[in-house]
Amino acid sequence: MFHGYTKQGGSTNLPTPSLITLLTDFGTIDGYVGAMKGVILARAHTAQVIDITHDIPPHNVAMGARALREAAAYFSAGTIHIAIVDPGVGTTRRPLLLEQAGQFFLGPDNGLLTLAVTNVVMAWELNRPQFFSKQVSSTFEGRDIFSSVAGHLAAGVDPDSMGTRIFSWCNLEEPTPVKEDQNWIGKVVHADRFGNLITNLPGSLAAERFVWEVWLGNHNLGRLRKTYHDVAFGQWLAYVGSSGMIEIAICEGNARRSMGMQDIEVRLCQKS
Amino acid sequence: MFHGYTKQGGSTNLPTPSLITLLTDFGTIDGYVGAMKGVILARAHTAQVIDITHDIPPHNVAMGARALREAAAYFSAGTIHIAIVDPGVGTTRRPLLLEQAGQFFLGPDNGLLTLAVTNVVMAWELNRPQFFSKQVSSTFEGRDIFSSVAGHLAAGVDPDSMGTRIFSWCNLEEPTPVKEDQNWIGKVVHADRFGNLITNLPGSLAAERFVWEVWLGNHNLGRLRKTYHDVAFGQWLAYVGSSGMIEIAICEGNARRSMGMQDIEVRLCQKS
Amino acid sequence: MFHGYTKQGGSTNLPTPSLITLLTDFGTIDGYVGAMKGVILARAHTAQVIDITHDIPPHNVAMGARALREAAAYFSAGTIHIAIVDPGVGTTRRPLLLEQAGQFFLGPDNGLLTLAVTNVVMAWELNRPQFFSKQVSSTFEGRDIFSSVAGHLAAGVDPDSMGTRIFSWCNLEEPTPVKEDQNWIGKVVHADRFGNLITNLPGSLAAERFVWEVWLGNHNLGRLRKTYHDVAFGQWLAYVGSSGMIEIAICEGNARRSMGMQDIEVRLCQKS
Repeated sequence: MFHGYTKQGGSTNLPTPSLITLLTDFGTIDGYVGAMKGVILARAHTAQVIDITHDIPPHNVAMGARALREAAAYFSAGTIHIAIVDPGVGTTRRPLLLEQAGQFFLGPDNGLLTLAVTNVVMAWELNRPQFFSKQVSSTFEGRDIFSSVAGHLAAGVDPDSMGTRIFSWCNLEEPTPVKEDQNWIGKVVHADRFGNLITNLPGSLAAERFVWEVWLGNHNLGRLRKTYHDVAFGQWLAYVGSSGMIEIAICEGNARRSMGMQDIEVRLCQKS
Repeated sequence: MFHGYTKQGGSTNLPTPSLITLLTDFGTIDGYVGAMKGVILARAHTAQVIDITHDIPPHNVAMGARALREAAAYFSAGTIHIAIVDPGVGTTRRPLLLEQAGQFFLGPDNGLLTLAVTNVVMAWELNRPQFFSKQVSSTFEGRDIFSSVAGHLAAGVDPDSMGTRIFSWCNLEEPTPVKEDQNWIGKVVHADRFGNLITNLPGSLAAERFVWEVWLGNHNLGRLRKTYHDVAFGQWLAYVGSSGMIEIAICEGNARRSMGMQDIEVRLCQKS
Repeated sequence: MFHGYTKQGGSTNLPTPSLITLLTDFGTIDGYVGAMKGVILARAHTAQVIDITHDIPPHNVAMGARALREAAAYFSAGTIHIAIVDPGVGTTRRPLLLEQAGQFFLGPDNGLLTLAVTNVVMAWELNRPQFFSKQVSSTFEGRDIFSSVAGHLAAGVDPDSMGTRIFSWCNLEEPTPVKEDQNWIGKVVHADRFGNLITNLPGSLAAERFVWEVWLGNHNLGRLRKTYHDVAFGQWLAYVGSSGMIEIAICEGNARRSMGMQDIEVRLCQKS
């Protein structure tokens, strides 16, 4: 895919102190995350390191991509995001640096960055070993390539000196809803910590001047609500969630546990 | 409840860099916590964001309130604490800002803040949308109201411009121990990560000049000990814990797993 | 054990802002970690507090020691590490401060620090209560002794004023591999979050000019690979891991779940 970006000097005028966020599937039982923080801070002494999460399920690129999208939009220009969910570590898949709206994103070229970064200004393949750690482990590039480059970036090194500009990369495809007659048919793509079911149906679909009903399989959830307590304790509801998508929940309950999130259709129907 | 506080100018002379702590029940599998951090840091670039915990069990206001009490006392004046365990999000329950000893506490008006904040200097209902995010989700006020206001507060905005002063709010009641003859009868209110059982019996009760024995149900744990290894490996003991309350544990073991924490009486008895 | 260190003035010229890392077995369901952060930051306002991990299994000193070793090496001089996995808290086991390569390590004298700190420049027993919190709980020295001293250290207090120099301490012994004929016999010492099995066989053993094969029990894993995808999806492999030790994994799978890590021998054999 081609992105016709033009050079806009992302590397100069970084605000200080720099912010560097981390999102990984490394968990917190080992010292891996700590090692990454050490590498970053050894190169950028005044940067602040911020944990997004390290609890993405191992190798689940799609869940990592969604969590990054959920969080990254709220950070300001100058922020550097490192995201590592990387089953292909050590192979020829490329290490990427993407720039969008003054923020930088580092991660493997496997789609992980691409739900958050949809409007690339500039992109690089990170291929200059002098900005990596001296020894690069072939199973821990998060430490030896990405953290090292991010530290240099926060310390003011020009991205152009750390990689080659590229114009295409892997994109992650999310399932899109389908229109059938007057109705939209989507699916549950994620269950969050509370067991709320996030669908791929944007809330904006329901903004037209019809009256809409939401169906989960054969279960009519009625019209869209504003918040959980618009229904009684223990009742099901649908609403436009905090990420703008239609979500399904149980008031003070756990919808995932009650229903699972197996391939059940979610339908947004014009009420007759 | 009335708190006859007088204006003491908490918003001026904040130490820099500001500290903002986060305590939520959001878990770390989603991007929610990251989104809050982004909102805060976009408004207060030099603030340091500190995680207290995000692993409060979903909707467990009492556990959140206890963890906040455990931690907040140790921070210094100028610290801003955001606490979100909020089953009533999006309803008419008010968003609060409380000031105590130069620290600020933001959270829902459901009692969550009130074990930590027992000596309010000033209180506000946060009701000025110009200090919220542009779009306020009715299911994620932690991001769109509390993080936004906390960021402005850290950046020096006067609390009086962000809300209306209030003089009463919801308080969380903790069960209090009962005196019966010479004895105190309490209960286990929390089991910590190690399985240690924290009671509602303050250690100060045992400071009188009698000899005291602790009973867990029908189980005599003997006199209060100083620390775990005052009994043999695997033995039960009672002691004054780090929060000042009487606790019950097994030396290098897990008391909760051995006993549960179902409504068993804990008695502090004068030894005859 | 004697360490003939010489005074090298670690306490002066600390870089600012100071970094203080935390590694504990406290979990994140309670307010304990938050309390430690409060104590530190109340004494060192501009320090940055970095979480290594709080998810070391309770009382597992060896796992804590390995995670600290994994992470600490990557931090730069001036960093202060607090590590607390301390089943003997409140007993006569000493609180330690160790200095190595300009970094400081605080923790109990139970071996926890000694996989990371193998080249001590200076060592102190922390025994000056004026640098502790006013009240020292006999079950939470992580808060009342270690965090308090670390805060003072970050604020510039000389270690010599906070403790007595010592010349021996408890060391943690790791099992060492055994040479038998031409072969090395080791074992699995840790399974990480991905289920990868880390052995006690250093990758350097395989650097000699022979051809080597790795055996897990009776299972021939073939020669050492570079990375996971050097074998097919779902296949076993052995490789030199990111910590320099030989590791055993399943490509995009979980070796621990498939095999466990019970006392199975791992052999590095010269191929005939």
